[in-house]
Amino acid sequence: MSLTRVHNLSISLDGFATGEPQSAEAPFGHAGQRLHEWMFRTRFWDQGGTTGVDDAFAERHSVGIGAEIMGANKFGPPGWQDDPDWKGWWGTEPPFHTPTFVLTHRPRPSIDLEGGTTFHFLDASPADALEAAREAASGQDVRIGGGATVVRDFLAAGLVDQMHVVQVPLVLGRGVRLWDGLEGLEDSYDVEAVSSPSGVVHLTFRRALA
Amino acid sequence: MSLTRVHNLSISLDGFATGEPQSAEAPFGHAGQRLHEWMFRTRFWDQGGTTGVDDAFAERHSVGIGAEIMGANKFGPPGWQDDPDWKGWWGTEPPFHTPTFVLTHRPRPSIDLEGGTTFHFLDASPADALEAAREAASGQDVRIGGGATVVRDFLAAGLVDQMHVVQVPLVLGRGVRLWDGLEGLEDSYDVEAVSSPSGVVHLTFRRALA
Ligand SMILES: NC(=O)c1ccc[n+]([C@@H]2O[C@H](COP(=O)([O-])OP(=O)(O)OC[C@H]3O[C@@H](n4cnc5c(N)ncnc54)[C@H](OP(=O)(O)O)[C@@H]3O)[C@@H](O)[C@H]2O)c1
Ligand SMILES: NC(=O)c1ccc[n+]([C@@H]2O[C@H](COP(=O)([O-])OP(=O)(O)OC[C@H]3O[C@@H](n4cnc5c(N)ncnc54)[C@H](OP(=O)(O)O)[C@@H]3O)[C@@H](O)[C@H]2O)c1
Repeated sequence: MSLTRVHNLSISLDGFATGEPQSAEAPFGHAGQRLHEWMFRTRFWDQGGTTGVDDAFAERHSVGIGAEIMGANKFGPPGWQDDPDWKGWWGTEPPFHTPTFVLTHRPRPSIDLEGGTTFHFLDASPADALEAAREAASGQDVRIGGGATVVRDFLAAGLVDQMHVVQVPLVLGRGVRLWDGLEGLEDSYDVEAVSSPSGVVHLTFRRALA
Repeated sequence: MSLTRVHNLSISLDGFATGEPQSAEAPFGHAGQRLHEWMFRTRFWDQGGTTGVDDAFAERHSVGIGAEIMGANKFGPPGWQDDPDWKGWWGTEPPFHTPTFVLTHRPRPSIDLEGGTTFHFLDASPADALEAAREAASGQDVRIGGGATVVRDFLAAGLVDQMHVVQVPLVLGRGVRLWDGLEGLEDSYDVEAVSSPSGVVHLTFRRALA
């Protein structure tokens, strides 16, 4: 069975998955890199990195994934839609290595890049986008890659099977919140929490069996 | 040295320390008892309860405390100020056993109850309230007892030395948030997180040495 999964979604204590304002110079706004420092220290990110609980969670990101869905604000800074040459933040060989669907109200033709990443642009409901990604994933799982807006929409639509959230000991104060509009989410999921010596907490949500 | 401490402050994943609306029938609004179930299962609360990490944290609540400061909304349901006979939720022998200062814009004469609890009513700034409580604590520590509004105000004023927050795997969606207005709180504190087999996460904040 092909599952829908979220991985390595990093939030502050107050639930923000990005700071503000987002820009070309500061993709995460005033949060800078602070939400992902835990990940940069793992072997998943850096050959010489740590191999403990943070790494164990981090590396599941790509295992068994056949397609990703991301939001327009993850794909580029505000205004990228006006730049016909924008191909994402990640250069000529993006780290996705699968068909990758960008949700946007201003779709454009698909872009084929090296290493197996093809960006497709979709103006579609979460359910329809998931159907397209599922088909492209040829039997493997679909990752919902973020940002918070898109993850929240897929959670609200009941489309997420597994979610891994990393809570970082920061109070960001402003940005885009993950939890808004999700009252009672715990009724649909088994939730586990494990703290790491690095200071972050890994939260896993698994869709509860009916 | 007399410290200012917060203990057993229980919040949801989305940071709410109470649900809504608060009323005589439902002091925590739609949250019900869900924020404190972790505590009811400990020996601190119930002789036959658990003795692991949840209990270890819970029982520090009273150790070395000489006074408490609480908010008007912890002391009673909306409107208690109009009831001259209201003496708090806790009956004739409240569990505080120290001078206890209730912050309210409508102060009334002090109330002496059994077991060492005296309620004093103060319309004062956090700093002035702390000075009064500190004096009453005769050398022991002062606990900021909640709710979130009062804890947040004391944090914002830089008056809290140690804080213990318990994060419960619920998304409440509405109520009173702890973290609002506290951007950058981590700069002033050493933060530790530890997960419990019960599913909650204990977060401790210790004021960083200058
Ligand atoms: N903390 C983490 O782990 C993490 C992970 C990933 C990303 N991020 C960061 O989060 C930020 C982006 O997150 P975000 O919440 O602001 O935005 P986002 O989820 O990336 O994108 C939201 C935007 O996508 C478009 N969109 C969403 N659903 C759509 C639909 N069904 N149909 C058509 N268009 C749709 C809309 O843009 P338009 O209306 O403009 O088309 C919408 O405003 C970036 O800073 C990124 O770097 C953080
Ligand atoms: N989750 C937990 O662990 C926990 C812990 C404790 C309490 N609670 C719950 O939290 C809720 C209460 O929290 P809350 O945030 O709504 O309110 P609160 O912090 O208990 O009280 C806030 C109120 O206290 C008064 N006040 C605060 N500072 C003052 C000052 N400097 N001078 C004068 N008056 C001042 C004001 O009331 P007036 O303007 O009316 O005077 C203010 O609206 C209750 O449901 C309680 O059961 C939860």
